[in-house]
Amino acid sequence: MTDMNILPAGTTIGILGGGQLGRMLATAAAQLGMKTHIFCPDPQSPAFDVTPFKTVAAYDDKQALKAFADAVDIITYEFENVPLATAEFLEGLKPLAPGARALAIAQDRLAEKAFLTQAGIPVAPYRAVDTLSALERALEATGGKGVLKTTRLGYDGKGQRMIRQKGDADSAFADLGGQPLVLEALIPFDCEISVVVARNARGETRAFDPAENIHENHILKISTVPATVSAETAATAIRMASQIADALDYVGILGVEFFVVPSDDAPTLLVNEIAPRVHNSGHWTQAVCLTDQFEQHIRAICNWPLGDTTRLADVVMENLIGDEIHAITEMLVPGTQPHIYGKAEARPGRKMGHINRVKPLKPTN
Amino acid sequence: MTDMNILPAGTTIGILGGGQLGRMLATAAAQLGMKTHIFCPDPQSPAFDVTPFKTVAAYDDKQALKAFADAVDIITYEFENVPLATAEFLEGLKPLAPGARALAIAQDRLAEKAFLTQAGIPVAPYRAVDTLSALERALEATGGKGVLKTTRLGYDGKGQRMIRQKGDADSAFADLGGQPLVLEALIPFDCEISVVVARNARGETRAFDPAENIHENHILKISTVPATVSAETAATAIRMASQIADALDYVGILGVEFFVVPSDDAPTLLVNEIAPRVHNSGHWTQAVCLTDQFEQHIRAICNWPLGDTTRLADVVMENLIGDEIHAITEMLVPGTQPHIYGKAEARPGRKMGHINRVKPLKPTN
Repeated sequence: MTDMNILPAGTTIGILGGGQLGRMLATAAAQLGMKTHIFCPDPQSPAFDVTPFKTVAAYDDKQALKAFADAVDIITYEFENVPLATAEFLEGLKPLAPGARALAIAQDRLAEKAFLTQAGIPVAPYRAVDTLSALERALEATGGKGVLKTTRLGYDGKGQRMIRQKGDADSAFADLGGQPLVLEALIPFDCEISVVVARNARGETRAFDPAENIHENHILKISTVPATVSAETAATAIRMASQIADALDYVGILGVEFFVVPSDDAPTLLVNEIAPRVHNSGHWTQAVCLTDQFEQHIRAICNWPLGDTTRLADVVMENLIGDEIHAITEMLVPGTQPHIYGKAEARPGRKMGHINRVKPLKPTN
Repeated sequence: MTDMNILPAGTTIGILGGGQLGRMLATAAAQLGMKTHIFCPDPQSPAFDVTPFKTVAAYDDKQALKAFADAVDIITYEFENVPLATAEFLEGLKPLAPGARALAIAQDRLAEKAFLTQAGIPVAPYRAVDTLSALERALEATGGKGVLKTTRLGYDGKGQRMIRQKGDADSAFADLGGQPLVLEALIPFDCEISVVVARNARGETRAFDPAENIHENHILKISTVPATVSAETAATAIRMASQIADALDYVGILGVEFFVVPSDDAPTLLVNEIAPRVHNSGHWTQAVCLTDQFEQHIRAICNWPLGDTTRLADVVMENLIGDEIHAITEMLVPGTQPHIYGKAEARPGRKMGHINRVKPLKPTN
């Protein structure tokens, strides 16, 4: 995105992907007077409920992509697995934010780790793996343990195998081999935190407070803010996230996940991964910030001044997975804020909504 | 609305009226996993941008109303001038909230004042007026001064004339006569405040803090919270608003406007008018409450537990009228939250958006 002008209210924003993130981006865009057009192959997409403008087509349908680009003023996306060819094709037709380069890097674990390392951002030791013997050599370098991951298309624990002892390597490679892999060293860490940072085309960055994340079955379950880290560690995480956004010449919201690794003096932060989109661990901002991450993303890609990220209260965000959503009205005690994604079917493991719990509320009077 | 069941996520809410209030109700409904269907005669309605389901038809088009009722699970409205026949017709087909009775009372200033008086709620002295001689007699009872208003269809200063001296009566009656009128006594007041209260079908009520309102050219310009009234006066206003909602057997958000009249001991509150819908003076809730008035309205009509109305900071809401909207991005200093309605044309006197200014922010860390 090279156009430095402010995109005014009335702009039509094209969004690739029709899940809950697209849905919440679309309602945030409406708050700023924007229109949205959702592109998604799934005719049941939750985001289709919040705009009259949609395209139901495959991501490689160039005719549909061309018509979509013609119908919008700027394009963004809600998930990082947009095919790179799609992003590059669209970027030739209309401004795309975040740009295809950020997407390409975030889609490939090896490219991402190489980029971060070059940018001076610490990551856990890793090795590229393409054969079983390469895996065995890599394990020697990581102390015999590690997590073997596909370099591409992994999320919510898909495409990864834990290797805790020698015998695990064969079966892990049998499961995942035949595609580019990376072995990541197992680092004993205190906790995982994440920072959601925004950057606009003028190069302004602004970050929300770090959240501390707990996963269940490889799916984010709970984000707590503030995280149980020192102010210094929090500031370091925010500085690193902004540094990554700058190094990518990034435009939009970027999610950055960290391991907090104990050490003799201050804990060390290692970047686990980055996500070039609004991030599940930033949903707490809806409850306690004047600007939430969705509005912030729209502001950033439209080159508006970035919004105030001051946090007005402590908060815990809990994802509601599968059947948990059915008890939502019973959860609505004082201090809570529900978000329900409007998905028809509550399948196991499916993110159906989330609830922000604010505690304690600090009224001004 | 007699059904006491909770309407679950997935419910389709029909909204009569496609203005900014309908637009913000629709995005709040989406937050709770609901779908919306907007009915409005104006094909350029701002609310049409936030849902795929719309009906463009006149409010007396029974065929269109029937199809609309068939397509939704419950019906609400965003403006109080929905024709009563329309409301009653729809109420025979699907649950309507707020009900037609509340609408009928709020649509007629005389019926409203009679209802409030009967419910024990104080209002300014008033007289029904249908002839010039009746107006002259009424003026004797109100000290020779007053505001002459049409009983129906007045808003933003339309349908009213100030009478400050004897000679004003003739021209005021000449302007407004030929329809039912009411003369309201001119009461010297300290300020105007309003309370936005919610009530669900189970009879739970919950109110937001009173706002203090300043009008320009008869249009709300600024709402400030907290209002410059004592805690006792604020509590009285909230109690009266809840009492009105109970007396109406009301379901949804009700706006209640008060004059704060100085007196020897505690100031007296007189109800100016009630609005059976989300209210412009409640837009500040979007910035500093966990549940804003739009979500609260959806919760109330779907018989959900009402949301937390605790206010997390002091706030000033300013309406952006006409061309003021064009400077919006320059207003976005820290502590502000913009809302833009997506109207194509910034006509003079037209509400184009609003900005919430929060000050001081009170971060927790």
